[in-house]
Amino acid sequence: MGESSENKGKVVTFGEVLMRLSPAGNKKLQQAESLEFFFGGTELNVAESLSYFGLEVSHVSTVSNDLVGDAALAFIRQFGVDVSAIKKVAHPLGLYFLEVGAAMRPSQIAYNRLNAAFANISPEDVDWPSIFKDAAYFHWTGITPGISQSAYETLKAGLEEAKKQGVTVSADPAYRSNLWKYGREGREVLAELTGLSNIFVGGVNEINEILKSDFEFSEEGFISASKKLMRTYPSIEKVFDKVRTGLSASWQKIYGQAWTGTEYLTTGELEITDVVDRIGTGDAYAAGILYGLQHFDDQKTLEFANAACALKHTILGDANLVSVEEVMEVTRGNTGGRIKR
Amino acid sequence: MGESSENKGKVVTFGEVLMRLSPAGNKKLQQAESLEFFFGGTELNVAESLSYFGLEVSHVSTVSNDLVGDAALAFIRQFGVDVSAIKKVAHPLGLYFLEVGAAMRPSQIAYNRLNAAFANISPEDVDWPSIFKDAAYFHWTGITPGISQSAYETLKAGLEEAKKQGVTVSADPAYRSNLWKYGREGREVLAELTGLSNIFVGGVNEINEILKSDFEFSEEGFISASKKLMRTYPSIEKVFDKVRTGLSASWQKIYGQAWTGTEYLTTGELEITDVVDRIGTGDAYAAGILYGLQHFDDQKTLEFANAACALKHTILGDANLVSVEEVMEVTRGNTGGRIKR
Amino acid sequence: MGESSENKGKVVTFGEVLMRLSPAGNKKLQQAESLEFFFGGTELNVAESLSYFGLEVSHVSTVSNDLVGDAALAFIRQFGVDVSAIKKVAHPLGLYFLEVGAAMRPSQIAYNRLNAAFANISPEDVDWPSIFKDAAYFHWTGITPGISQSAYETLKAGLEEAKKQGVTVSADPAYRSNLWKYGREGREVLAELTGLSNIFVGGVNEINEILKSDFEFSEEGFISASKKLMRTYPSIEKVFDKVRTGLSASWQKIYGQAWTGTEYLTTGELEITDVVDRIGTGDAYAAGILYGLQHFDDQKTLEFANAACALKHTILGDANLVSVEEVMEVTRGNTGGRIKR
Amino acid sequence: MGESSENKGKVVTFGEVLMRLSPAGNKKLQQAESLEFFFGGTELNVAESLSYFGLEVSHVSTVSNDLVGDAALAFIRQFGVDVSAIKKVAHPLGLYFLEVGAAMRPSQIAYNRLNAAFANISPEDVDWPSIFKDAAYFHWTGITPGISQSAYETLKAGLEEAKKQGVTVSADPAYRSNLWKYGREGREVLAELTGLSNIFVGGVNEINEILKSDFEFSEEGFISASKKLMRTYPSIEKVFDKVRTGLSASWQKIYGQAWTGTEYLTTGELEITDVVDRIGTGDAYAAGILYGLQHFDDQKTLEFANAACALKHTILGDANLVSVEEVMEVTRGNTGGRIKR
Amino acid sequence: MGESSENKGKVVTFGEVLMRLSPAGNKKLQQAESLEFFFGGTELNVAESLSYFGLEVSHVSTVSNDLVGDAALAFIRQFGVDVSAIKKVAHPLGLYFLEVGAAMRPSQIAYNRLNAAFANISPEDVDWPSIFKDAAYFHWTGITPGISQSAYETLKAGLEEAKKQGVTVSADPAYRSNLWKYGREGREVLAELTGLSNIFVGGVNEINEILKSDFEFSEEGFISASKKLMRTYPSIEKVFDKVRTGLSASWQKIYGQAWTGTEYLTTGELEITDVVDRIGTGDAYAAGILYGLQHFDDQKTLEFANAACALKHTILGDANLVSVEEVMEVTRGNTGGRIKR
Amino acid sequence: MGESSENKGKVVTFGEVLMRLSPAGNKKLQQAESLEFFFGGTELNVAESLSYFGLEVSHVSTVSNDLVGDAALAFIRQFGVDVSAIKKVAHPLGLYFLEVGAAMRPSQIAYNRLNAAFANISPEDVDWPSIFKDAAYFHWTGITPGISQSAYETLKAGLEEAKKQGVTVSADPAYRSNLWKYGREGREVLAELTGLSNIFVGGVNEINEILKSDFEFSEEGFISASKKLMRTYPSIEKVFDKVRTGLSASWQKIYGQAWTGTEYLTTGELEITDVVDRIGTGDAYAAGILYGLQHFDDQKTLEFANAACALKHTILGDANLVSVEEVMEVTRGNTGGRIKR
Repeated sequence: MGESSENKGKVVTFGEVLMRLSPAGNKKLQQAESLEFFFGGTELNVAESLSYFGLEVSHVSTVSNDLVGDAALAFIRQFGVDVSAIKKVAHPLGLYFLEVGAAMRPSQIAYNRLNAAFANISPEDVDWPSIFKDAAYFHWTGITPGISQSAYETLKAGLEEAKKQGVTVSADPAYRSNLWKYGREGREVLAELTGLSNIFVGGVNEINEILKSDFEFSEEGFISASKKLMRTYPSIEKVFDKVRTGLSASWQKIYGQAWTGTEYLTTGELEITDVVDRIGTGDAYAAGILYGLQHFDDQKTLEFANAACALKHTILGDANLVSVEEVMEVTRGNTGGRIKR
Repeated sequence: MGESSENKGKVVTFGEVLMRLSPAGNKKLQQAESLEFFFGGTELNVAESLSYFGLEVSHVSTVSNDLVGDAALAFIRQFGVDVSAIKKVAHPLGLYFLEVGAAMRPSQIAYNRLNAAFANISPEDVDWPSIFKDAAYFHWTGITPGISQSAYETLKAGLEEAKKQGVTVSADPAYRSNLWKYGREGREVLAELTGLSNIFVGGVNEINEILKSDFEFSEEGFISASKKLMRTYPSIEKVFDKVRTGLSASWQKIYGQAWTGTEYLTTGELEITDVVDRIGTGDAYAAGILYGLQHFDDQKTLEFANAACALKHTILGDANLVSVEEVMEVTRGNTGGRIKR
Repeated sequence: MGESSENKGKVVTFGEVLMRLSPAGNKKLQQAESLEFFFGGTELNVAESLSYFGLEVSHVSTVSNDLVGDAALAFIRQFGVDVSAIKKVAHPLGLYFLEVGAAMRPSQIAYNRLNAAFANISPEDVDWPSIFKDAAYFHWTGITPGISQSAYETLKAGLEEAKKQGVTVSADPAYRSNLWKYGREGREVLAELTGLSNIFVGGVNEINEILKSDFEFSEEGFISASKKLMRTYPSIEKVFDKVRTGLSASWQKIYGQAWTGTEYLTTGELEITDVVDRIGTGDAYAAGILYGLQHFDDQKTLEFANAACALKHTILGDANLVSVEEVMEVTRGNTGGRIKR
Repeated sequence: MGESSENKGKVVTFGEVLMRLSPAGNKKLQQAESLEFFFGGTELNVAESLSYFGLEVSHVSTVSNDLVGDAALAFIRQFGVDVSAIKKVAHPLGLYFLEVGAAMRPSQIAYNRLNAAFANISPEDVDWPSIFKDAAYFHWTGITPGISQSAYETLKAGLEEAKKQGVTVSADPAYRSNLWKYGREGREVLAELTGLSNIFVGGVNEINEILKSDFEFSEEGFISASKKLMRTYPSIEKVFDKVRTGLSASWQKIYGQAWTGTEYLTTGELEITDVVDRIGTGDAYAAGILYGLQHFDDQKTLEFANAACALKHTILGDANLVSVEEVMEVTRGNTGGRIKR
Repeated sequence: MGESSENKGKVVTFGEVLMRLSPAGNKKLQQAESLEFFFGGTELNVAESLSYFGLEVSHVSTVSNDLVGDAALAFIRQFGVDVSAIKKVAHPLGLYFLEVGAAMRPSQIAYNRLNAAFANISPEDVDWPSIFKDAAYFHWTGITPGISQSAYETLKAGLEEAKKQGVTVSADPAYRSNLWKYGREGREVLAELTGLSNIFVGGVNEINEILKSDFEFSEEGFISASKKLMRTYPSIEKVFDKVRTGLSASWQKIYGQAWTGTEYLTTGELEITDVVDRIGTGDAYAAGILYGLQHFDDQKTLEFANAACALKHTILGDANLVSVEEVMEVTRGNTGGRIKR
Repeated sequence: MGESSENKGKVVTFGEVLMRLSPAGNKKLQQAESLEFFFGGTELNVAESLSYFGLEVSHVSTVSNDLVGDAALAFIRQFGVDVSAIKKVAHPLGLYFLEVGAAMRPSQIAYNRLNAAFANISPEDVDWPSIFKDAAYFHWTGITPGISQSAYETLKAGLEEAKKQGVTVSADPAYRSNLWKYGREGREVLAELTGLSNIFVGGVNEINEILKSDFEFSEEGFISASKKLMRTYPSIEKVFDKVRTGLSASWQKIYGQAWTGTEYLTTGELEITDVVDRIGTGDAYAAGILYGLQHFDDQKTLEFANAACALKHTILGDANLVSVEEVMEVTRGNTGGRIKR
C-alpha cells in the first residue's frame, strides 16, 4: 500500500458492503463443500483500490451487528480505509453467491441483499456534514439508489451536502435491471442524481439510459452522447468510459475513451488472455480515474485507469490490490511477465 | 442408507431449508478465507436422518429459484428424501453463519432468514391433501411458526389436514427467543399447535413455556409436567425428552426420559468426550423417536433415540449420517472405538 | 435442473460407476497430499447430463456394498437420476487416478477397474424387462463390453430386450485398447452390438474399427463410411459425429457432423481456449444428441450437442452440469462471458 | 471488537512481528503441502487482544519492505491496532515454523529471526517521545532484549522515555534460553529493565531468574519472591502470575495468583480439556491484566486475566480474538458450551 | 530422522504397499469433495518407523507400474527406506478408504486389495538370498499370508532363506477375518509360519488363534499362553504384547507386557486422551520392539515400544514419524505438552 | 522416475536448498490464510530433473538442523537424489515468498536467504575429493557465488577438484543483481569461474556480462559472442542458449540455439499458452542439456532441452517432474493434449 504523503485530500465513498461467496476455481455450488469469501461492494472496491494507491479514504455504510459485520470491518480495516462512518445495525449483511465461468460459460451470480443492512440505511444513519469536512472527492454508483428508497434518500442527502461543501462528485451511474424493486423508475432517479455530479464514469450505454436517447456505440456516438449529457447536466465536466470486447469469460480486451469537454481521448487496447477475476474491474477503472484526476493530466489519467482495470482482471477478489507503480509498469508496456525478484 | 423394505409408511416433514456456513475447525470468521457449507434446517435434519435409517420421507418447503436453491435440492436429493413438495420461489434462501467453539468457548450463530424463501411461504404453496395421501407421520417444530405469520398459517393448515387424514403428528415445540418478530406471542402459538399433535418431543422447559407453568427440572417435575400437558391437550399420547449436561462445548452428557401416559422410562447416560458437531443433535433425537415408534417398544425407542443423538455429536454437518445398525451398536454398549474393517 | 414436464419418455443408461481421484490443479500425484474426487463413468455421465436437462433417467449398474458404494449412490441421487436399478455387490468400486495436464503436457490416467463391482455384473443382476417398461431410449458405449465377458453378456441381454420392447438404442461404440483383456476381439463384439442399435454416435474412426475399413478423415470419408455402416447394419438410422482439433491440452476446437441417411449436416466450430476439464466431453455430446432427438430436428440436435460438448470443457468433474438454457445460449452465439446476475 | 468509548488512555507495545507457519491440524512439516500462517509476536499479541477489548493501542516495530511486510501490516491493521510506528526496513521479516503436538507429543518450533527486520531495529528507528504522548501504558517482554543488542538499546530508550512521561510500564520478563546469542547475559539485562517497570507479569520462575534466587514453587514461595522483588526494585507495584498444570499438550489447567504489595490473591482453576492453540496464552493473560488494571480492582483483574488466558487456548492463531463480554461469561462460570444464537 | 551411525544391521520388511484415502477430519465420504492420502501398509509402517529411528531398512514389495506406483515409491523414498527390492508390476496398487470416527463412533474401512499388485506377487519377484545378505532382522505380519496363495508362498520362501542366513525373524501374526479368501485356513498358515520365527509380537488373542487354545486375558493367561507357544514352537524366544483399553475412538489406554522365556515384564499405562490417528499404532509398537532389541534390554525395549505406540496415536498417517529422542522423552514421563522451541 | 540402467556416470550439483512459499492460485499474500510450499533451488532443480530422467545424482549443500531441514531432506530423497553430501548446520534454511502473476501482472518474489544455512557454508563442510569419485558431470550456476564469500570459496574449491578429477563442468552463470551483497563484483567472479568450466548454458546476455561486451540479441550476435567466449576461456567447448519471448506472465514462447564450436544449431519454437509455473524453467533446460550430452548428439540435445523447458512451464513447483519419454513426445510434436490412458 502506498505512502500517505501523496494525498491531495480525502476521498469519500458510499455504498453497500457485500459478502461474496464462491466455490474455488470453476466449480458449481453443487460440487463444492466450501466457499471462498471476500467482502466487497462496488463503491467499497473503489475505496480499497484508492487506499492501496496511497490516498486517504473513508467509506460510509452500514453492516450487521453480528459476527459477519465484525469480520467485514476487520476486512476493510486491513486496507487502511477509515471505517468510522460504517454503522452497525440489526439487519444481516447483504451477500451474493458467484459461480465462476470459463471460456463460453459465463459467471453466474445470485444476490441476497434487498432486505439487508444497507437496504435499511436511512439519512439519520449518516452525518454527512462532518464526513465531508476534509474531503476532496465523493464517489457514488447507480447500484446504491437501486437498492431501496431509503438508500436513495441517504445518497441524495450526501450529494446535496457534497455540493454545499464544494466536494467534487464522481458518478458511475450504471443501471442494473435486477435492482429497482421498490417502486421508482431507475432511469429517472439516475438522471436526477447525475445532475448533482461532476465527473461521469460511463459511456453510450449509461448516457442512453439517462437521456432515453439512442446514440450509437462508436467514437462519434460517444462524443455526441457526452456533449448532449453535458448540455443537459451542466455540472458534468468530463466523461470517462471504457470499452470492452469479450472474446469469452476468460479472454477480454479493453480500452479507454474520454470526452474532456473539448477533446476526445483514447488509449491503446489491453488484452487479458487469462482472466483471473472479472468482478470489480469497472470499480478498478473508476478508482484509476479518481487517482489520475488528482495526479495526472486527462490523457495519462485515462491510460492509468485502463491499465488499472486490466490488472484487476488478474487479481482475485473484489478489490484491486495493485500499487501505483504496478499500474505504471503496464502503462509503460512492461507486460511480458518477467518475474520481479 | 437403509433399504426401503423396512418402511411402515411415509414420514412428512415441514420446515425451512437453511444454508449453514462456517470456517473449518475452530476459526473465527475474521481468520478464514473460506467457509464450509451444509444445507440443513431442524425438520429437514429429521427427514434426512429418517431417510438414512431407510424410511420413505418427503420434505415440504420452499427454496430460492437460483443457483443456491438448485444446490440445496441436489444436496437433499442425495439422501433419497423426496423433494417434489419443495417449491422454487423468488426470495433468497435463508442461511446462517456458525463459529464453532471449543472447551469453554461456546459456538456462535448469526442468522439471515427472516425475509428468505421460507419466511414467505404461504398455504397456497403447499398441497397438503395430496402430500399426506400415503403418510403415516407428520413432524413439526417450534421454529417454523416463529419465522412468519404465513409460515405459521401454512403449518396450521398442514396440522389440520393431517388430523383429517389420520396422520400421527409429532411435535418438537422448542421456543426460540430470537424468532417471533412478526407480532405473535410464541408461547400461545406453540400451545395452540401442540393441541393438534400426538407425540411431544420435549421436557420440563418446553412444557413450562406452553403451560406457563414452573415445574422443576427433576424426574418428579418431568412426570408431573407431562401429566398436566396430557390433561390440557388430550391428543398428546406420549412425551419423549432428553436431558443434557454440558461440561464444555467439547464435552457433553445426555440421557433420555419419557412419560408414556402410564410409565416413566429412562436410559443410561452417554458421554461424548470429543464433540465434533453439536448442531442437529436434538433433531437426531427426534428422528430416533420417530424411527423407534415404528419399529420398537417405548423403552427401546428411548434408548435408540438417545444413542442416535449421541452419535450425531460425532458427525459433521446438520444431518445424522448414521445407519440403524450403527445406532444399535451404541445401544449395545460397543463404544470403545474398535475400527470396523 | 430442468422440470420433468419436458419428458418424452425415460432414458435408460447402463455402465460402470467409477470413482475419479485427481490432485487439484495441475499437480502430479507425487506432489499432492489430497485428491479431489467425483463419481462418473461414460454412460452415467450421459444419464446425469440428461437428468440435468430435465429428462427422466434411470441408470443400471452395480456398486460396492461398502462406504464407497454408499457415497456413489448419494452422489448419483443428487442429480435426480433413478438409482433403483443399481445393485450393491461384494466387489470394490472401480476407480481411476487422473493427473491433469496443461499446454503440451497431456493428462494421464491410471485405472483400477478390471476386477471391480461392475466387471463382475452378470445378467442375473439386472431385470431388463421391468427396467424398459416406460423407457423410450437406451444408451450404451463401447467401454462396457470391453470390461468383462459377463458385462458384455449383460449388455447384450439388455439390447435384445430393448429391441423386443421397441426402445430406441443409441450406441457410442468407441474402441479402447486398454480394455478387452478377457479374450474377445473388441472390434467384432462392437460390430455385433452395433447391429442391435439405431443411433450411432461416432465417426470415421469408430466405423473403420467396426467395418475393418479405411475411410478417410474428411467430409467425403465420413459420408461414405456412414452409408456403408447403414448398409451393413440396417437398424442404424442416423450417424452423429464430432470432430476435434487439439491445439494443446488447454486449447481445443470442436464441431459436429451428421449423416441422417439422406443428408450431410454440420455445425460451426467452437473454440475452447481455456479447458477446465476434458473428461466427459464426448459423453456430453452424446447426451446432447439424445436430448435433441426428443426435442429438435437433426440440424438443431447437432448444434445443441456440439454446444453441450463445448460447455462441458468448462465444467469440472465428469458430468455436464449445464441446463438446456445455457446450451441454447451458446448455440445463439452468446459466448463473450458477460456475467449473468 | 469493542467500542473505543471505553478507552482510558492508549497502550503502547513494542516487539517483533513474526510470521508463524504451521501445517494444519497435527501434521508434521514433512507430511504437508501447505502451511497455515498468522502474524504474531508476543507483544503484538497483547496489542491485538487489547484492541479487540476496545482499547486504543499502538504497536512499535519494524517489518520487511517487501510483500511479506505489506501483508503483515494489513494483518495488524484489521484489528484496529495503530501501525504508524511500524517502520519498513530492508531485512526480511522474522518467522517461525510450528508443528502442533497432541496428547503426549509436544508442539515444536523452529525460529528464523536473529538476522531479521526486528533484530536490526535501532533507537533511531523509533520516535519514543511522540509515541508516548497520549499513552497510559507501555508493555514489554523478555523476548525483545534477547534478540539483539540494538533491540535491547531501543527498548531501554523506550523505558526511559516512558518513565519521563509518567507512562505505567508493565513487564513480562520471561527468559528464553534460545535467544541471547549476541553476548549479553540475559538475566542481568532483564533485571536492569525490570528496574524501570511498574507491573510485573511473572512468577517464581521469572523472579528467580532475575534475582538469581531459588524461591519454591508454592504460594509461600510466590509471596516471598514477590516481596523480595519489590524490595530490590521499588518501582514494581504489583506482581501477577499464572500457574499452569499440563496434563498433556491437549489438556491444561490454569489459575492466577497475585501479590498486590499487601495482599495475596488467587482465582479458581480453569480446565481446558481440548486445547485448540497453546501459543499466545501467556500474552492473552498479560492483555487481561492490562485491561483489568484500567477497569477493575485487582481480584477481578486477576480473574479476568485468567479467563482470557483460558479462552485463548480455544482460539487458533497468536492473538486472543475474544471480546470483554466473552471473557466475563467465563468469569461468571458459563462454560457449559451452550450455543449462542 | 536419525543418523545411520547407530545401525546394528539392516532390517528387512515384506508386505503390501497400500494407498489410504480418507476425508479430512471426521467427515463421511459422502460429505467430502476431496480425500487426504498416505501410503502405508502394516510392514511398511514398521520399516518407515525404523528408518526414522536411524536404522538401515529395506522394504520388499510390488507396486503398480503407473502414476500411482511412482508416487508410492517417491513417498517411501522420503523416509530413506531402500526401495530397490520393490518391483513395478502390471496390477493396480491396493488401497483402502477410511472414515475416521470420534467418541463412540468407530472408524470404518473399505478395502480394495485382493486383486492388486501385491496379491499377485510370486516367489520369482523377490531375490531373497541377495536381500538378506547384510540383514540382521526380518519382520513379517499375519496380513501378508492372508492376501493370496502366492503372497503366502513368497513369504514362506523368505522365511526359509532368513533361517538359512541366520537372520532373526520377528512375527506379528494377527489374524484378520476379512482376508483369507483364497482357500487356506488362516490359523493353520499362521501357526506354520510362527514356527519359522524367533520374536513373537502378540498376546493371548494371537496365541489362542494359532494354538486353538483359550487362555484368559490376564497376566496369568498371557504367561501360560506364552509358555505353551514357546513349547510348541521352540524357535520363539520372546513374546512382546501390548494391552489396549478403548474408552472411545478418541480416548485410549495402552501398556506393554512381555514374557522373556524366564520373566514377566510390564510397563506403566499410557493414556491418550485425544487420539489423532489410530491406524498403525500396532506397527509403531512392533518397530519399537525391533529398535529396542538392537539397543536396550528387554524391560527398556518394552517401555520404548509402549511409548512409541502411544506417540503414534498423535501422528497423522500410517507411519510413526517420531525420533528416538521423542520416544525417550515419553519414557521419562515428560508428557505435559511443554512446547519445544 | 527412470531406471538407473541408463546411467553414464553420476552428476554432482552444488547450491542452496530453498523453501518456496506461495499462496495457491493467483492470490496475494494478504489474501491468503495458507501457503503452498516446495523445496527447490536452481541447482537442486537440475539434480531432481536428472534423477527423474533416471540418472544417478548427488546434491551438495547445507540445510538447517531443525524440523525444516528434516522436511527438506525428506523432500529431496523422494526423487532418489543422493543426500549424503547435504550437511545439517545451525543456521535456518533460506526461503522465498512468491506471489504468482497472471496476464500482464508479473510474479513477485521476496527472499530470505542471505544469512541462512547455505550462505554460511564453507570449504570445510564439503569433501569434494570423495564426492567426485564416481562423477562424470558437475553443474554450478551464478547464484551460488553471489550468495556469500564462503559459498564462492566452496564452489571454487569444487571446480578445482573437478578439474583435477577430469569431471566435465557445466556452468549456468546468470548474474542476479539482488545478490552480490558481500563485496565482490559479480561479473568478475563469474568470469573467473567460467574459466574453470566446459559447457556454457547461457546466451548473449550472460556472455556480455562476463566479457563486458555488447553483442546484439540475434543469431549473429550469439555466434560472435560464443566464439569470443571460447577464445577467452578455451576450456568452454559448447554454448547452449534458450531464447524466450514473453507475451504475458501466462503465455510464453521458447526456442533453443547452440554454438558447438563449429556449427550453429537451433530448434523450432514451442508456445506455452497456459503457463502453470514459470519458476525453474531455466533449470529444466539445463537438465535437458546435461541429459542430452550423455545420450544424444548436439542437435537432439538442444531439442530435448527445449522440450523439457517447455514442459516445466506446465508443472507446479520448482522441479521438472517429467520423464524422458514425456519430453521425447514433445520433440515428436505430440502436443495436442490427447489423454494418455
